[in-house]
Amino acid sequence: SRSINLAVIPGDGIGQEVVAEGLKVLSAVLPQDVKLETKEYDFGARRYHATGETLTDADLDELKQHDAILLGAIGDPSVPSGVLERGFLLKLRFAFDHHVNLRPSKLLPGVATPLAGQPEIDFVVVREGTEGPYTGNGGTIRTGTPHEVATEVSVNTAFGVERVVRDAFARAQARPRKKLTLVHKNNVLTFAGHLWTNIFNKVAEEYPEVTTDYVHVDAATIYLVTQPERFDVIVTDNLFGDIITDLAAAVSGGIGVAASGNINPSGAFPSMFEPVHGSAPDIAGQGKADPSATVLSVALLLRHLGHDAEADRIEDAVSADLAERGGLPARSTSEIGDALAARVAG
Amino acid sequence: SRSINLAVIPGDGIGQEVVAEGLKVLSAVLPQDVKLETKEYDFGARRYHATGETLTDADLDELKQHDAILLGAIGDPSVPSGVLERGFLLKLRFAFDHHVNLRPSKLLPGVATPLAGQPEIDFVVVREGTEGPYTGNGGTIRTGTPHEVATEVSVNTAFGVERVVRDAFARAQARPRKKLTLVHKNNVLTFAGHLWTNIFNKVAEEYPEVTTDYVHVDAATIYLVTQPERFDVIVTDNLFGDIITDLAAAVSGGIGVAASGNINPSGAFPSMFEPVHGSAPDIAGQGKADPSATVLSVALLLRHLGHDAEADRIEDAVSADLAERGGLPARSTSEIGDALAARVAG
Ligand SMILES: CC(C)[C@H](C(=O)O)[C@@H](O)C(=O)O
Ligand SMILES: CC(C)[C@H](C(=O)O)[C@@H](O)C(=O)O
Repeated sequence: SRSINLAVIPGDGIGQEVVAEGLKVLSAVLPQDVKLETKEYDFGARRYHATGETLTDADLDELKQHDAILLGAIGDPSVPSGVLERGFLLKLRFAFDHHVNLRPSKLLPGVATPLAGQPEIDFVVVREGTEGPYTGNGGTIRTGTPHEVATEVSVNTAFGVERVVRDAFARAQARPRKKLTLVHKNNVLTFAGHLWTNIFNKVAEEYPEVTTDYVHVDAATIYLVTQPERFDVIVTDNLFGDIITDLAAAVSGGIGVAASGNINPSGAFPSMFEPVHGSAPDIAGQGKADPSATVLSVALLLRHLGHDAEADRIEDAVSADLAERGGLPARSTSEIGDALAARVAG
Repeated sequence: SRSINLAVIPGDGIGQEVVAEGLKVLSAVLPQDVKLETKEYDFGARRYHATGETLTDADLDELKQHDAILLGAIGDPSVPSGVLERGFLLKLRFAFDHHVNLRPSKLLPGVATPLAGQPEIDFVVVREGTEGPYTGNGGTIRTGTPHEVATEVSVNTAFGVERVVRDAFARAQARPRKKLTLVHKNNVLTFAGHLWTNIFNKVAEEYPEVTTDYVHVDAATIYLVTQPERFDVIVTDNLFGDIITDLAAAVSGGIGVAASGNINPSGAFPSMFEPVHGSAPDIAGQGKADPSATVLSVALLLRHLGHDAEADRIEDAVSADLAERGGLPARSTSEIGDALAARVAG
């Protein structure tokens, strides 16, 4: 479309700094005739301390008006663990039914990896975003006593599994290698595991060109460090996806360059794009954060909205910048943003 | 004690081959006056196909008579996923209350790692073994229909968490670095997460010399490949422990050398020792499997039974063999076993 109405949530810690650079690059890449409107929201630790609120129904109504959401990072040590995660991040993913959590991993030439021998890494994880152990189902009895019992319920539905598995097959079909791996733990979590496996095998029949594969989540972590080239597209549950995408980010250049999209493919609600990294309070405000992950999240956002050429330009700019990085002096957050903006404006 | 009455379960695939070498080294290391009695059990795929049984109450009564159990590997593609895992491996861990699942990771000099720069790795994971998402609680409704719902319930009790946390603190206290890291996902799995965190913090007060730390499981996978030296002892839940110990094995020399103990510290039931690797049916019967993980599991077994000097000798032998390995021609399973037996008999 010829206009983008964007909700911007810088959030906490380095979120502020990296989002500023993301917007800089976004403005630079958009053609003159695409009108960009942004509205900033102050969600996160400050709002929570000031009002006790994380995300209200009125907030959701406002956010809903936008074409997409760009988020920096949410989380601060001053807020008890879980409050902002469950009260903001997960609440938003669930409210806007962000069931496709897309996390590409690509080791770009010249980029440092902790792995020896510079392996080929180019895969994308399709993480389910609205089910599994993330639903908040469960509870405690005899809380705080020596007889406490705490449960967490992983909820998996045929509806929820099938839609994300279909999304992953379509993505695998569209890639040159056409390979899809299901990652689960179906030998232990047999109820959910059989549901995932049965639906995966059923949908596979509709995609005869896609090669399929199953790997237990524990074995997947081994392959990610010993044979990452074996993966093309991975589809997995919410918690396994959380774990393996952090590892995937680490081996493919670090969380400084790992982007993600929380996508509602139906378009019923705006999708949200955010770097995989957190708010990193230890380095906040010092201009040390790498904005590349946010800039790459902007590329995912543009692709989601149909601006493929602009998304390509951003990805190429980040690749070029990373390839040059070894030879560049250490740069600040905004210097990297400036360099990327200059490249995409090209 | 001056006698060891051992139950031996070779199991499936390479289990047979590696257990034979484990026993060879065990016989070689024991002093003349320690009487070793072994009884072999045929659990696994063959028994299942022949009788439909995985592990009966009568089997458990028999196994209970032994001082310890040595297991090779259980699992075969001819058996549906989950049948032997839930019906044998997990059934045994639960029946014998193996709540301390001990998995040491040490990168020995000269051993190949997928990580660049040969980092220092020397930590031990204390994985809870009888709770969490492994309990088999959960189920399905509308099974096989488009409206199926499958749940998996993670069950966590103050009793179960406290005993494993205490075990981990005691282990940390006994190590030179005295550091203990809790790995969980307490910002999302808040019910179980708060229980783990509260108990961890409470027990910490009794161990003022132990430095404590908390890391989310997703971040833990990053540290395992970027800063593995930050870990000394890790305590974690059953599923997180399963995942991070496979990754830990991969970065510290591979699953060919990763040992584990399923321990009941009370001694009410025999503890079980097994390599972390599986039955590897693709290489079974070819003499290609590395028996070192099983041999190191024998060392854990000896240490558990109070034969520390013999455990040390085995660990030293494996270290020496691994250090030499680069210079050795490729050897078969039994050649490695012979070499280790010769060293410990020294
Ligand atoms: C902060 C947390 C709720 C979140 C998650 O677990 O999904 C984060 O780790 C991520 O991966 O986006
Ligand atoms: C085979 C399986 C049941 C087992 C587990 O998940 O515990 C294995 O992966 C392990 O780590 O011992």
